[in-house]
Amino acid sequence: MANFKLTLEYDGTAYSGWQRQAEHRTVQAEVERGIACMTRRPATVFGAGRTDAGVHALGQVAHFHADTGLAPEVFLKGLNSLLPPDIAVRTCAQVPETFHARFGARSKVYRYHILNREDRAAVGRQYAWFIHRPLDADAMQAAARVLVGRHDFKAFESAGSPRAHTVRTITTAGWDVDAAQRRLRFTVEADGFLRCMVRNIVGTLVAVGLGKMAPDAVAGILSSRDRRRAGATAPPQGLFLVRVDYGDAEGPGDAGPGTQD
Amino acid sequence: MANFKLTLEYDGTAYSGWQRQAEHRTVQAEVERGIACMTRRPATVFGAGRTDAGVHALGQVAHFHADTGLAPEVFLKGLNSLLPPDIAVRTCAQVPETFHARFGARSKVYRYHILNREDRAAVGRQYAWFIHRPLDADAMQAAARVLVGRHDFKAFESAGSPRAHTVRTITTAGWDVDAAQRRLRFTVEADGFLRCMVRNIVGTLVAVGLGKMAPDAVAGILSSRDRRRAGATAPPQGLFLVRVDYGDAEGPGDAGPGTQD
Repeated sequence: MANFKLTLEYDGTAYSGWQRQAEHRTVQAEVERGIACMTRRPATVFGAGRTDAGVHALGQVAHFHADTGLAPEVFLKGLNSLLPPDIAVRTCAQVPETFHARFGARSKVYRYHILNREDRAAVGRQYAWFIHRPLDADAMQAAARVLVGRHDFKAFESAGSPRAHTVRTITTAGWDVDAAQRRLRFTVEADGFLRCMVRNIVGTLVAVGLGKMAPDAVAGILSSRDRRRAGATAPPQGLFLVRVDYGDAEGPGDAGPGTQD
Repeated sequence: MANFKLTLEYDGTAYSGWQRQAEHRTVQAEVERGIACMTRRPATVFGAGRTDAGVHALGQVAHFHADTGLAPEVFLKGLNSLLPPDIAVRTCAQVPETFHARFGARSKVYRYHILNREDRAAVGRQYAWFIHRPLDADAMQAAARVLVGRHDFKAFESAGSPRAHTVRTITTAGWDVDAAQRRLRFTVEADGFLRCMVRNIVGTLVAVGLGKMAPDAVAGILSSRDRRRAGATAPPQGLFLVRVDYGDAEGPGDAGPGTQD
């Protein structure tokens, strides 16, 4: 059995998220269908992160095992012709048997896009959260800095699939502001993320940006471990899974359960 | 009767272009429906340019007459709540009775986006022409320069609604290259455009970029006035109507037939 690593880009607008579900269209199911079509066997693909409904990816990573003589380049071209236009394979490589897209991940980078202007947008509306009231980007930047480091992020975990361990390390968290385009872009890198953690963080930082919460309130929210004290969950369409990193190249895949979603 | 000027942004993906058609969904019909809903009278809206099916706009301009006491700000907010999410009103202003979005236009700016990489994209695929073979941007830039100035653009006019006069003046035509993102962006400004002129120009410049045609062939195509000598029509989804300019502010609207589409 050969093990293949895929890097995937997708527009999540039309999907009920990554994970296979019986009644809904999901990215995982589409990719599995494509692989099965090429190998003529049922396929199971494992993603690094289970992106939610409406969330996009520029660099989701997934792996699958296949008893095949097909070369990675053949999968790359074949899948790109079989997959729908809103899912694209960026890379395909053969990796050691031990490589696991989820358990081997050392860190992930997410980005969240906000359009902050008075009137709504039509072009690109499916890739940003539109907020018409003015945001204080300096306050949001100050609040984001509080999140960097090793913390218990329980207060930013949504209900459903709770984790036994909710301590994660954020290595980067900050905003880029494009004043001319009235766009704010949040980039966050961590060794793992809890359910809806990025969207709950963004919702909280936006509450700060709107003056509903002081930047230094974030420290108190963290230590409370209370989801009700953090802000609302930001909508999915602004979120992109940008990159997944695997330390020493493509393996080994024995990182344990420390890196979730 | 008051005369209102609208600046419109729209994602053309789901529309059969700007112009009202009995059996198809068009931007003009949606905007007219929105205005009629607010004024409780049938409305007719005149656009500066009749963008084709699948073409987008960031700054289409249109005007409409209405016997109403409603203020421009009321139309702005009202239309943005009535229009579908892929059409947005950016500005609304009351203008002199003589203002005409089409006949008053002094110049228009269009942009065309190309994604030039080996593997296709999923995110933003509806806003660019994907070309997988490498393009020679220098050659395309040299060819674009030939187009600047006052020329007969008959060779770049598609069949249907032919113009008696096909001489136009291009004031800007050039490519920006984002090498990291593998994107090329063509910006062209002229006092008017013939049917599919921008897409026929882009198709020709891409033929140059692929080495199918020499940059200096463009001069010969222009002087031939022969559509068959120019390149294929570039696909619609890369094209954006960016801006329409009206010389002395909002009027007068008596520029005559020199400025078409």
